[in-house]
Amino acid sequence: MSRESAFIDRLKAVASDPAARALMDDAAVLDRPENGLVLTHDMLVEGVHFLPGDPAGDVAWKLLAVNLSDLAAKGAAPLGVLVGYGMGDDPAWDTDFAQGLAQALTHFGTRLLGGDTVRMPQGGPRTLGLTAIGAAPACGAPDRRGARTGDALFVTGTLGDAGLGLALLQGREQAPDDVRARLIAAYRRPEPPVTLGPDLAPLMSASADISDGLLIDTGRMARASSIDIVIDLGPVPLSPAYAATRGDTPESRLAAATAGDDYQILFTMDPAQEQEARAIAARHGIALTRIGHCAAGEGRLLLHQNGTPMPLPGRLGYEHDG
Amino acid sequence: MSRESAFIDRLKAVASDPAARALMDDAAVLDRPENGLVLTHDMLVEGVHFLPGDPAGDVAWKLLAVNLSDLAAKGAAPLGVLVGYGMGDDPAWDTDFAQGLAQALTHFGTRLLGGDTVRMPQGGPRTLGLTAIGAAPACGAPDRRGARTGDALFVTGTLGDAGLGLALLQGREQAPDDVRARLIAAYRRPEPPVTLGPDLAPLMSASADISDGLLIDTGRMARASSIDIVIDLGPVPLSPAYAATRGDTPESRLAAATAGDDYQILFTMDPAQEQEARAIAARHGIALTRIGHCAAGEGRLLLHQNGTPMPLPGRLGYEHDG
Repeated sequence: MSRESAFIDRLKAVASDPAARALMDDAAVLDRPENGLVLTHDMLVEGVHFLPGDPAGDVAWKLLAVNLSDLAAKGAAPLGVLVGYGMGDDPAWDTDFAQGLAQALTHFGTRLLGGDTVRMPQGGPRTLGLTAIGAAPACGAPDRRGARTGDALFVTGTLGDAGLGLALLQGREQAPDDVRARLIAAYRRPEPPVTLGPDLAPLMSASADISDGLLIDTGRMARASSIDIVIDLGPVPLSPAYAATRGDTPESRLAAATAGDDYQILFTMDPAQEQEARAIAARHGIALTRIGHCAAGEGRLLLHQNGTPMPLPGRLGYEHDG
Repeated sequence: MSRESAFIDRLKAVASDPAARALMDDAAVLDRPENGLVLTHDMLVEGVHFLPGDPAGDVAWKLLAVNLSDLAAKGAAPLGVLVGYGMGDDPAWDTDFAQGLAQALTHFGTRLLGGDTVRMPQGGPRTLGLTAIGAAPACGAPDRRGARTGDALFVTGTLGDAGLGLALLQGREQAPDDVRARLIAAYRRPEPPVTLGPDLAPLMSASADISDGLLIDTGRMARASSIDIVIDLGPVPLSPAYAATRGDTPESRLAAATAGDDYQILFTMDPAQEQEARAIAARHGIALTRIGHCAAGEGRLLLHQNGTPMPLPGRLGYEHDG
């Protein structure tokens, strides 16, 4: 049996939902959803978005998580995914990937519907794509462009752990073993707030996921909404592991706000709804932090430190524009 | 401006539908469909599925067409697509790709909803993925597994042109210029029967697209349906350009039936519905040919030549199993 066939057989064992048609048909078939649909597609390329030495199971997890993060920010509950798998030269990597994908699908409560498996040319980088399909919330999917004057700015979870995990992996920083493991897990196995997003969606005026860094993603929201957004670094939420490693200083908060790979939700909301939103987040066991506000303006990002304006740093996050 | 930003700006001009949210949001948002959904994802990798010298506009067309072919075989009308674009080193290629994609989307009457653009590592092959989302027909999407004893086997269009076009491009065969152009176009810009599929779906018992070759894809349908399917080579439909180049002989028919890249629909149907199906195909100006039948059995493919059994060839089509 060829390597492609062996891999597809592994996926068939994962794709047990009838919608996948046992991966024997030309396409997957979904029942009519209750509301609209939210659709996203993100790619990961070896040597660009992950390293050849990264565990395949972690790459599978991340491929799923980065796409589910987009759905969560739109308040969409995952209905299923299609995977595009550009295979490398190592069969053990394929096996580990399929296992990691199965584990991540179970963890996030969604299912494999279909996709495509191809072999990359000899020596070509593994290239992975995933399309996630989500059920839009009844209120409609919040838009990145919806922030209004007077809204407050919120963020879920904590920031900076993944960026610090990457720094540890690259040997740029050091941490004790238990803390190190937690921070590296944040980088390799992100936990986007998949079930919280749909519950919060009715309260959101604008929403986006934080993939490239709090500052850069907030700047995009400000531009898209044609409104100024002020972030205060003071309340930016840090995890205990992060604070234990880098301390809790203006500098460490700025590093957390520009690191990227957080896969948390950034959203704006009428501040009168704050108590309701806090109760929802508490039910999910996820932190919710008010970190800023929206003001009439031309789409600028502004930065404060405990209420005092400060200049923007030269680097706001991960820039795709190289 | 970076090359990625320049390319995304080109796509923004293409993605004018509100569902794409101007490519400024985390995800695309579709209204609730009338029935179910059909979803497919196919990849094309440079050096595997297309050559570095192939025109970028043709690659874009083919990327869309191969996915719409899957939808057509399921009777699904396209609602939109997401594109995963793994960029190479040549900006002119990106420009031509975006133009070709826009042209193909217009030609097939569908729209760009979103996707992802990444840069491949230096020297890495361009790697393209496309997810097509279709509206399932009210009757439900026909399954590859639905063929029944007594059904007749039909195929849309003509077969073998694309395979012969590839042979011409590779210098393995020769043809006069006008015929050559037509056959190469069949290879580079396939025309799946996108609007015919949904109209025929209510009549189909089983259906699949022909991507790897008539014989191999029929064999898969027979196995999936646990029924024997007999193909008669005699009526296999050839185009005038094909017959002019290779002649109309049992050998040329067998070559057409094993070439692949046809992107036509193969389906089974109660033969009592043949007249109705012919009327529908005629309205679309697309040939419909009865080429075989289903018989009780264990999932085998059987071959006839004008009613006389003949042995299967060693090669049934394009085998992914290398």
